[in-house]
Amino acid sequence: MDSRTLQKKLVGYEAAKRIKDGQVVGLGTGTTVRYFIEKLGEKIKERELDILGIPTSYQSFLLAKNCGIPLTTLEEHDVDIAIDGADEVDKKLNLIKGKGGAHTQEKIVDYSAKKFIVIVDESKIVDELGKSPVPVEVIPSSLRMVCENIKKLGGKPSLRFYKYTPWISDNGNFIIDVKFDSIGDPSRLEKELNNIPGVVENGIFSKNVDEVLVGTKNGIKVLK
Amino acid sequence: MDSRTLQKKLVGYEAAKRIKDGQVVGLGTGTTVRYFIEKLGEKIKERELDILGIPTSYQSFLLAKNCGIPLTTLEEHDVDIAIDGADEVDKKLNLIKGKGGAHTQEKIVDYSAKKFIVIVDESKIVDELGKSPVPVEVIPSSLRMVCENIKKLGGKPSLRFYKYTPWISDNGNFIIDVKFDSIGDPSRLEKELNNIPGVVENGIFSKNVDEVLVGTKNGIKVLK
Amino acid sequence: MDSRTLQKKLVGYEAAKRIKDGQVVGLGTGTTVRYFIEKLGEKIKERELDILGIPTSYQSFLLAKNCGIPLTTLEEHDVDIAIDGADEVDKKLNLIKGKGGAHTQEKIVDYSAKKFIVIVDESKIVDELGKSPVPVEVIPSSLRMVCENIKKLGGKPSLRFYKYTPWISDNGNFIIDVKFDSIGDPSRLEKELNNIPGVVENGIFSKNVDEVLVGTKNGIKVLK
Amino acid sequence: MDSRTLQKKLVGYEAAKRIKDGQVVGLGTGTTVRYFIEKLGEKIKERELDILGIPTSYQSFLLAKNCGIPLTTLEEHDVDIAIDGADEVDKKLNLIKGKGGAHTQEKIVDYSAKKFIVIVDESKIVDELGKSPVPVEVIPSSLRMVCENIKKLGGKPSLRFYKYTPWISDNGNFIIDVKFDSIGDPSRLEKELNNIPGVVENGIFSKNVDEVLVGTKNGIKVLK
Repeated sequence: MDSRTLQKKLVGYEAAKRIKDGQVVGLGTGTTVRYFIEKLGEKIKERELDILGIPTSYQSFLLAKNCGIPLTTLEEHDVDIAIDGADEVDKKLNLIKGKGGAHTQEKIVDYSAKKFIVIVDESKIVDELGKSPVPVEVIPSSLRMVCENIKKLGGKPSLRFYKYTPWISDNGNFIIDVKFDSIGDPSRLEKELNNIPGVVENGIFSKNVDEVLVGTKNGIKVLK
Repeated sequence: MDSRTLQKKLVGYEAAKRIKDGQVVGLGTGTTVRYFIEKLGEKIKERELDILGIPTSYQSFLLAKNCGIPLTTLEEHDVDIAIDGADEVDKKLNLIKGKGGAHTQEKIVDYSAKKFIVIVDESKIVDELGKSPVPVEVIPSSLRMVCENIKKLGGKPSLRFYKYTPWISDNGNFIIDVKFDSIGDPSRLEKELNNIPGVVENGIFSKNVDEVLVGTKNGIKVLK
Repeated sequence: MDSRTLQKKLVGYEAAKRIKDGQVVGLGTGTTVRYFIEKLGEKIKERELDILGIPTSYQSFLLAKNCGIPLTTLEEHDVDIAIDGADEVDKKLNLIKGKGGAHTQEKIVDYSAKKFIVIVDESKIVDELGKSPVPVEVIPSSLRMVCENIKKLGGKPSLRFYKYTPWISDNGNFIIDVKFDSIGDPSRLEKELNNIPGVVENGIFSKNVDEVLVGTKNGIKVLK
Repeated sequence: MDSRTLQKKLVGYEAAKRIKDGQVVGLGTGTTVRYFIEKLGEKIKERELDILGIPTSYQSFLLAKNCGIPLTTLEEHDVDIAIDGADEVDKKLNLIKGKGGAHTQEKIVDYSAKKFIVIVDESKIVDELGKSPVPVEVIPSSLRMVCENIKKLGGKPSLRFYKYTPWISDNGNFIIDVKFDSIGDPSRLEKELNNIPGVVENGIFSKNVDEVLVGTKNGIKVLK
């Protein structure tokens, strides 16, 4: 197992220790969160924990179900604690999320959580957001117009494909990956992107992050 | 025919006179635009006009097709001129749209148009937006959270139903009608609503309106 | 309360008596099932029953949630017993369903149930299916082709509208209501309709009905 | 360029020769059809052809648009001729399609065409269908039930993933790939699969194929 995978496992398992009996838990999406969900499933099987999970994608729904985690919805329960990954984390705990294409449902769950903990390996820590592209979910019929509006904001948009096929999100929409040279004011850009007609949600998370558990070669670093 | 219907017909037919040969025309949605689309169809049948239409909903797609208007998409053509209705128009030509549930696709088309003309009967003219509710399209799984966030903005949200069945938009989403006591800064509220996770688009149009044709008992009044 | 409503209430409440502790219950959609879901909610509140519900539409999801019924999904649980309404019931317990536009999700749940009980008022009992139209859910882009294929089967298709707006199902599709003069072989027509490209599901239910509770002026009649 | 790619190009270009001025052309999806669409775009640019295309997926829509092919819909025009690929072709010209996940929209267009020509390289020719899996598009909430019903038909279903993420079709649904040991009666299996609640469409095409152009090492073979 390479060091990045070890670091993901480390923080995934650590996050599982933060979950208390009777809690409603936001289940993020992605390769790091996979370890968290699997560990949670073990604890439930061994009757150490009795919780309800709220998934943030078909991916985390199917994984959680297979791990035996009882599931519910945001319509029925508030989220006590959400655990999710990130593509980038800056010094002020702003995030870029959405490489897995699930940032719309993730933001609905993560922004509603009383506590939101992010788990990443150390390669995700940046000084300023913008090395990775910002994923933007768009209604297919608005593709060209959204790209034009994004260029006006200084972004370089490219439609996400899987081989020749445009990537379709769980909500049936396209994902545009937008490269910005730098993102000086994440909160502002988050609003500007969301106000473009046809944009459903973008992958900048500028709110609600309480803690970031960073897996490093020397153990876990906690950013607050 | 009651006076309001007469006024709708008046401005619908007037708008059709504004369309020039070879143009790509944004086709709005609603009872007033219906007269515009039907008149456009007549002109095309009588070979007075050769245009392409870009519909803003299944409703306007089916109507335009039945009227023999050749159709295209925003992916293939820019919009020279968009004609659409409104639920409310204030003195600064801010609009509330979305009673027909099509405001998401309408904003994608109307905001992209080189020229955007609104056609209404006089009952739609208000001093300040807010007599009618603001329609907000939301992803179904985010319903409760969006309502809570809307209340924090001072709105009273209610899910739109058709009899016992929640209304589903052309994009497969819910529509929440939000009553605000008053809307002092439409542009700001438009952004705030769009930045709530789960909100796809809201019915405040604070941009891009060039002209409003108002059908009145004494003919057509033009607001610019 | 008119006699038909009384009859609906009668069978709705009767069906609630059939539910046993610990069961997973398919929650149908419609005005008759509303009484069943409300009665179920009362029993749960009074701790007479501890069950899980699987809704068949956004309508029954929201109603069940408001009635305090804990909900789950077909992915996590099998259905012990499903209770649902119908537009028509013939002598062999074939059904027409879908007036509420939810027959696709209803058939997924009802056909999977170990026991499937239908609750109707007496006006729904027919000698042969076909007085009411058969609802057919179709992918919007296939509308014209599906209508042409349906005419070849002897049906008269008409797109379902709410005022000027095409009705959109929970899955984001159109509903075509198809009038047949008579439906001699429901099972065969069910297959033929489902094999038309663009058809997602139709409202003929020719399988899996165990019992029909019929509310009449003289109490409840049970058909098996 | 390897021999298979050469064969695809060969039949893609050959199919473009079959298209006549003024026709409405069904534009399939996939790597072989890509050559056909690109060649068609060249002919249009050189004013050799004036046609309208009807795409069968977002993939073929975006490709055709970029190639300058004017597009329309099945709502506005009948299909004179459809050109599409296939994963398998048997001796009676039954097909398996859907590796690209677009078989639902493809069947809507291909089955409606007055003429339907399939273009494949020789590796796609089989004695009996069933070497490759049959793709089945399903409504996500019905996944488990559909898999159970498919097993009763002798199929081995597996949900299609892209890395950890379930593949989502253009219609927002899952794709299950179903391996059958052999498919003796394609037409019957096509119906049976389509009659499972939750199945939107499957990849067996047992109708409407007029010709198959097979690219071989020795040129083009035509199957009728």
